[in-house]
Amino acid sequence: MKFAACIEYDGSPFFGWQRLSHGPTVQGYVEQALSTVAAEPIAVVCAGRTDSGVHGIGQVIHFETHAQRPLRGWLFGSNAHLPDGVAMRWIQPVVDDFHARFSARARRYRYIILNRQARPALLQRRVCWQHGVLDAAAMHEAAQVLLGEQDFSSFRAAGCQARHAVREMLEVTVSREGEFIYLDLVANAFLHHMVRNITGSLLMVGAGERPVDWIGDLLEQRDRTQAGMTAPASGLYFVHVDYPEHFGLSAEYTLPHFIF
Amino acid sequence: MKFAACIEYDGSPFFGWQRLSHGPTVQGYVEQALSTVAAEPIAVVCAGRTDSGVHGIGQVIHFETHAQRPLRGWLFGSNAHLPDGVAMRWIQPVVDDFHARFSARARRYRYIILNRQARPALLQRRVCWQHGVLDAAAMHEAAQVLLGEQDFSSFRAAGCQARHAVREMLEVTVSREGEFIYLDLVANAFLHHMVRNITGSLLMVGAGERPVDWIGDLLEQRDRTQAGMTAPASGLYFVHVDYPEHFGLSAEYTLPHFIF
Repeated sequence: MKFAACIEYDGSPFFGWQRLSHGPTVQGYVEQALSTVAAEPIAVVCAGRTDSGVHGIGQVIHFETHAQRPLRGWLFGSNAHLPDGVAMRWIQPVVDDFHARFSARARRYRYIILNRQARPALLQRRVCWQHGVLDAAAMHEAAQVLLGEQDFSSFRAAGCQARHAVREMLEVTVSREGEFIYLDLVANAFLHHMVRNITGSLLMVGAGERPVDWIGDLLEQRDRTQAGMTAPASGLYFVHVDYPEHFGLSAEYTLPHFIF
Repeated sequence: MKFAACIEYDGSPFFGWQRLSHGPTVQGYVEQALSTVAAEPIAVVCAGRTDSGVHGIGQVIHFETHAQRPLRGWLFGSNAHLPDGVAMRWIQPVVDDFHARFSARARRYRYIILNRQARPALLQRRVCWQHGVLDAAAMHEAAQVLLGEQDFSSFRAAGCQARHAVREMLEVTVSREGEFIYLDLVANAFLHHMVRNITGSLLMVGAGERPVDWIGDLLEQRDRTQAGMTAPASGLYFVHVDYPEHFGLSAEYTLPHFIF
């Protein structure tokens, strides 16, 4: 039997998604919990690995097992064995040729900035705090040049292992609601640190340190050393994975959103 | 000089608001930070004490000092000396007869329930999780009997030190947005555990364990032993304090709100 499941996690207490021998990871805990419920070793494949501190609300995994359990058993059993910061939101059977990573058509990320003088208390490690006033409209305008099929070498981490840097950006919007600024990015796939590197450069535009057309210049240069810093992991949420309809996974998602 | 300030805090790591000799409290940290900025001992008075685990987004304090600092100095200095889970949102000078507690006309609380099968991961210790489906409309209907001037003895903690149990409830609404249920309560003042005890009984109505008119029966009985359990602190937010306009404090507030 093959299953797909959706995992929500607080990235702050973990060393990222991927299983490691030297620290607690989300994948490690998910595999432990599923193996306990199945009473056999289970390995999972995810739609997209996330770094230490990055949050997940719609990470999708698949796994195969010989164990037969009712769906409620998988869900409640897994949540009973997962640590506080990780939860399984849903689980369902999928056809054999479903693959959490290779079947995905697009991934959606949201980056949340708290833009006010006082640092966050209740939302510590849940947002990126910027105390200087940011021009979200300028950030949105600057970001539109990222749309379409592009070479994103300028926003790619030095250690990125992808074969090439061409990705198709399907949506990029920057919007303000009160003290919060939301960056929404959808692409067929993302390079390592791509959202956080784009955000770091857009923050410089928002602060008035660079002009709106600078993002286009960066894109053309294909040189990571020219772009802004990597924005902190704490503001980043892996929101949703889009799969072809015939797999029967929900196309619905909710954008993480705080009002304070 | 007398100042009013607004304090935001994550209640989960603290032993409540009130200064204690045997554990970390929000008041203790706020007084330490202000005393450091002022270079003299400062004691604060709050609008309403909160219990261990209860969150604050609009707690108001006042304090007096001989120290002269620019407002930015008070704000940035305090936030630099406060622990991660506590932040000062604003500070402003007030007239001598302002009193954070006695000048208050009304207090607003919000209680947030996450109502879904999977427990929270990212919102752990930020919401109260209820996995059984709750009827928010029934809860709202049941709660309307609480409006007006009433004797709230049935919803008062055993150790409550108030002289009497009569309070005036100005607003009580229960509303659902997706997987979240919000309880909003405004009263001139609240008894100890009053919001959490009301919520505990409304949860029984929402679950269908008690009829809608049960809340009115409880109110009439004036007997704490008849009502539901005290709902967990993790879902409770102290949102706003309303003062007469002539004190010049903002009447604006934002309701804490999560979308996931």
